[in-house]
Amino acid sequence: MAQSVLLTGAAGRVGDAILGRLADEHEWRLLDRDPPTDEQPGEFVVADITDDEAVREAMDGVDVVIHLAGDPRPEAPWDSVLTNNIDGTQTVFEAAVDAGVEKVVFASSNHAVGAFETDERTPEMYRTDDDYLLDGTELPRPGNLYGVSKAAGETLGRYYHDEYGLSVVNVRIGNLTEGHPPIDYERGQAMWLSYRDCAHLFDRCIRADYGYEIVYGISDNDRKYYSIDRARDVLGYEPRDNSADHD
Amino acid sequence: MAQSVLLTGAAGRVGDAILGRLADEHEWRLLDRDPPTDEQPGEFVVADITDDEAVREAMDGVDVVIHLAGDPRPEAPWDSVLTNNIDGTQTVFEAAVDAGVEKVVFASSNHAVGAFETDERTPEMYRTDDDYLLDGTELPRPGNLYGVSKAAGETLGRYYHDEYGLSVVNVRIGNLTEGHPPIDYERGQAMWLSYRDCAHLFDRCIRADYGYEIVYGISDNDRKYYSIDRARDVLGYEPRDNSADHD
Repeated sequence: MAQSVLLTGAAGRVGDAILGRLADEHEWRLLDRDPPTDEQPGEFVVADITDDEAVREAMDGVDVVIHLAGDPRPEAPWDSVLTNNIDGTQTVFEAAVDAGVEKVVFASSNHAVGAFETDERTPEMYRTDDDYLLDGTELPRPGNLYGVSKAAGETLGRYYHDEYGLSVVNVRIGNLTEGHPPIDYERGQAMWLSYRDCAHLFDRCIRADYGYEIVYGISDNDRKYYSIDRARDVLGYEPRDNSADHD
Repeated sequence: MAQSVLLTGAAGRVGDAILGRLADEHEWRLLDRDPPTDEQPGEFVVADITDDEAVREAMDGVDVVIHLAGDPRPEAPWDSVLTNNIDGTQTVFEAAVDAGVEKVVFASSNHAVGAFETDERTPEMYRTDDDYLLDGTELPRPGNLYGVSKAAGETLGRYYHDEYGLSVVNVRIGNLTEGHPPIDYERGQAMWLSYRDCAHLFDRCIRADYGYEIVYGISDNDRKYYSIDRARDVLGYEPRDNSADHD
């Protein structure tokens, strides 16, 4: 069944991957700070994610929110992630609850757990013969303040799920690139997410039933240190790409 | 060995419990938004925790920071916990790293995990014949936005430990009351922390060696659903009080 979906941060790379394949699958409302430069598959709202009133208006009649908006830079300074990522995400959750939205899909990041990649474990953990595996039940270990902000967003989701019954899934997105995996970059190959798998994964987040989940968003790479079992089991994620096929 | 300790939020209840017993044990610098009303055991800095410059100045020459400052109300609104608790804590960590501080002791809270107390588990989990036990390795489940802010502070500590080698211990403080445990309140008795045990626990946080820890701060109550094993093992915490002795 097609859903009415609000996509925040629609003009970014993840939004591009999603809309490139799902434009006709759902009814879209798009929100971004930057106005669109070409034709869009739905109503486009130009607003900052911290603009409470605009975000509330954009939620009207929406079933599902995919919340991508925020400062996407791993090296982003604290003031920016505090405002855009932490405060912005709370604005989204609060408005979603008030608007009676059913599900919020939160774009978390591999950076929420980046500090598990210690000097002792790397580069071995990026290789197929290493069995180190994170599955989303571990406490966050952010490698930067951007990662701290993503972990905080996940905890906000936990609260809004527990308190208001909102369905929340956090997707710790890996390394999203179009066409082929990063070249000569083992880490990037281990956490590669193809555009095709990305769109499919978010489609599953829109359609599946769940309570509160943390899943890793990567393709079915031979090399991986993130488990995709939870995404398969709960969301019905069936990735079709594998960075090893591009060697 | 006596340490030079900066105590933020010194005028609050936890600060009162600490200074009431440890005033002569360490060299204190005290910081609070509110000026003191009586004699203090050390230099007193009147400043808001979000005042970057004042916090940096207060760190000078300090070995250990006990960071209590923040909005302590479980029902505090988002804007206040975002500013005072999340942003304020980042200010403290950043200043501590720059000043070469060795340890930061962060006053976290039982509210970081309050939503584990579901309708299905309570009141059974507050009783001695129930074996439900949280030990600090579980993902946070805040019962309110104040709890979200405390979980975010813990994650900030994880980052500053991993990135800069700062020793960080998060104390999820239970129900701190002077003299005797809460009366006719099973939950409060299960998570009681006496003033005496509170002071001893923070003294251990000042003196012990650790990397990154999350511990529960409660007395050795017969009724408990928080493990104090980690506090015993890593910090050498030896509580002397038990809410069951006050029935």
